[in-house]
Amino acid sequence: MRMVDIIENKRNGKTLSTEEIQFFVQGYTNDTIPDYQVSALTMAIYFRGMTERETADLTMAMVKSGDEIDLSAIKGIKVDKHSTGGVGDTTTLVLGPLVAAVGVPVAKMSGRGLGHTGGTIDKLESVEGFHVEIKNEEFISLVNENKLAVIGQSGNLTPADKKLYALRDVTASVDSIPLIASSIMSKKIAAGADAIVLDVKTGAGAFMKTIDDSKALAQAMVRIGHNVDRQTMAVISDMSQPLGYAIGNALEVKEAIDTLKGKGPEDLTELCLTLGSHMVYLANKAESIEIARAMLEKVINDGSAINTFKTFLRAQGGDESVVDDPTKLPQAKYTFALEAKEDGYLTEMVADEIGTAAMLLGAGRATKESELDLAAGLMLHKKIGDEVKKGEALLTIHSNFENVEEIKARLYKNIKLSAKQVDAPLLIHEVITK
Amino acid sequence: MRMVDIIENKRNGKTLSTEEIQFFVQGYTNDTIPDYQVSALTMAIYFRGMTERETADLTMAMVKSGDEIDLSAIKGIKVDKHSTGGVGDTTTLVLGPLVAAVGVPVAKMSGRGLGHTGGTIDKLESVEGFHVEIKNEEFISLVNENKLAVIGQSGNLTPADKKLYALRDVTASVDSIPLIASSIMSKKIAAGADAIVLDVKTGAGAFMKTIDDSKALAQAMVRIGHNVDRQTMAVISDMSQPLGYAIGNALEVKEAIDTLKGKGPEDLTELCLTLGSHMVYLANKAESIEIARAMLEKVINDGSAINTFKTFLRAQGGDESVVDDPTKLPQAKYTFALEAKEDGYLTEMVADEIGTAAMLLGAGRATKESELDLAAGLMLHKKIGDEVKKGEALLTIHSNFENVEEIKARLYKNIKLSAKQVDAPLLIHEVITK
Repeated sequence: MRMVDIIENKRNGKTLSTEEIQFFVQGYTNDTIPDYQVSALTMAIYFRGMTERETADLTMAMVKSGDEIDLSAIKGIKVDKHSTGGVGDTTTLVLGPLVAAVGVPVAKMSGRGLGHTGGTIDKLESVEGFHVEIKNEEFISLVNENKLAVIGQSGNLTPADKKLYALRDVTASVDSIPLIASSIMSKKIAAGADAIVLDVKTGAGAFMKTIDDSKALAQAMVRIGHNVDRQTMAVISDMSQPLGYAIGNALEVKEAIDTLKGKGPEDLTELCLTLGSHMVYLANKAESIEIARAMLEKVINDGSAINTFKTFLRAQGGDESVVDDPTKLPQAKYTFALEAKEDGYLTEMVADEIGTAAMLLGAGRATKESELDLAAGLMLHKKIGDEVKKGEALLTIHSNFENVEEIKARLYKNIKLSAKQVDAPLLIHEVITK
Repeated sequence: MRMVDIIENKRNGKTLSTEEIQFFVQGYTNDTIPDYQVSALTMAIYFRGMTERETADLTMAMVKSGDEIDLSAIKGIKVDKHSTGGVGDTTTLVLGPLVAAVGVPVAKMSGRGLGHTGGTIDKLESVEGFHVEIKNEEFISLVNENKLAVIGQSGNLTPADKKLYALRDVTASVDSIPLIASSIMSKKIAAGADAIVLDVKTGAGAFMKTIDDSKALAQAMVRIGHNVDRQTMAVISDMSQPLGYAIGNALEVKEAIDTLKGKGPEDLTELCLTLGSHMVYLANKAESIEIARAMLEKVINDGSAINTFKTFLRAQGGDESVVDDPTKLPQAKYTFALEAKEDGYLTEMVADEIGTAAMLLGAGRATKESELDLAAGLMLHKKIGDEVKKGEALLTIHSNFENVEEIKARLYKNIKLSAKQVDAPLLIHEVITK
């Protein structure tokens, strides 16, 4: 088998065989196939696409390229949730305790990463004492006891995907649905997921800007799941404006606490209930989505969801008293209101630009070396469709530096008011199960 | 400017600017742009194509990537001929003396290369004493005196093209018309051509197998020429069967001598007169193609064409007496007739397979390290459309080894006889001047 023939086959629109896909992924992982051949192939894939079978084969070849996490010592069906990323997306912090409270095991391997805010681990580290440096055995026994634990990424997971992604990034072949879908799914499967719930964001703040692209990506991932025997479903959710009100690490922890207490923002609560009920259903803990949803509403109302969160924080060294007194979370030195300059209705709030403003305050990392400011961020007070009076605060800036004029200018530029009322954007566009 | 943006622009179907093309060719030449980005770009070009302007820009950027031969000391318009390569293509050996005899300066830089037979230099070295290791000044004064000289390739011509071709070869992006066209044209222009006559072969023995592809390539090259102020025209000629009768180095020298004496094969003579008359016309030595053709017929008939060849051989150390006594050329130890197994008409003679048989006899190089056997090759006696009697020789094998059974089997497989007569293939399919 020769790589040049594999490239030519794909270029000519042929379907690659399972062996051809394994040959190229293995060869690329162990450096016997050079970057310049792989970048030619990924560009050919950009133009020719991949069949469902090819995409599933690529996914599994990447899974097999490195370590695979063995979660078999955890009782029950391990359902993982993945979000394609957005602004103010606090769902992971809420969903973990929420579904754990009804008995779904959540064994979360998480990272830090770049972006508008930190990753799940960064956010949780807003709670004093909380840490993820635990041994694998402790991780597993914590999940078995409390149904929820978070551990930092370790091991050599999907090295082929890492190499391939870095190469695609500098060769303009990132935006290929089969390549994106297999990249995401390979990481989830290597991390030990039995079933997968996907939250595919759509709109200005999302990787996929249009419903059509988001739907195509969701379908590609769901079909990979079905082809490799992992039950998988996807929700396409709005990311034209930020989700919830909080954007920032400590701010989002507080928002998650509110939501677990039943006092969170409506959109965040609704999305968590939707994703959560599918997780519960896929974990075989409910006979229908409706029953699953009722179970989740119950654990919010009776306090067991927030108690699960407390137990989880304590088990990993965190100060659980933040749950009752969120002022114990890191607080910024300064707060500034962004005041409406006129009466009207909020009609636009460009999610990615708002996210960038939060990052510039220190809430997110621009480069791997950036230091996070866990207290910094934005608390929205108005969202699309809301009425606003002149002088009213659109949002509050939480900052540890005093001069935020540039950030204010950026925010004003990306929040639009109009005399004419508009509807709030649809939160959940579609649920894809096959 | 960033290479990743250039790749993305092309991938998205945008037209690259002159600056973008220069940036990538310069960067690739001086190793600041890596192979893996260039292979992604060439694959994107494979799918998206290039406009006439982009193709001309790429050509000139490759010309500027290295040395350019200065032929200004040679009087007159320097017209170069290029063939896209075929089997038994003796045109260069004939055309040089032919057009030189009517006063067109032919300053030929030539190579050895891989293929069914050697390159022009290999063929000429069949003549004892002939050599191309001459100084530039001598080369130029020989052309001014005799209108014809051949020199080996020297200098660092179109290094960008060399790197690009080697990369395309291992990344399945060879078959792209704008990339092929700019590669060929950049070499001719860097070698100092003022005007260019192209012989684009079509059929089984050619790089371009179909008329449509051959025509597209010819048009792309002619348009490059017009865009960079080099008069350029192309002839699309048949390569479904070998050209002429001889395939082999010394055998082709003998055939060229015959042709220059007016006793060559009909197809070779016709193609040389067609290409030659365009060369004479582009060199401003005749007012029309018809007048140019008459001039060429005259120098064949009055002996001045063959005399120019003699003078040329002598000037570069060669034994000119081979012209009158071709038995002085290298002779193979053995000759074998390939006899027809039945009566009929010759209907097929697959050019590339016949060429491979010649190469296996030693007439061509399979790898750079292969040693040539100048005497080896094939002399055809029958061509498509000819009547054949059982036992008659279809061709003669000239070999320095005794066992040619495998070669015979290969030849029989690729020469078809039939009871039904067919026409000889059309020799010249089209002449493209714009």
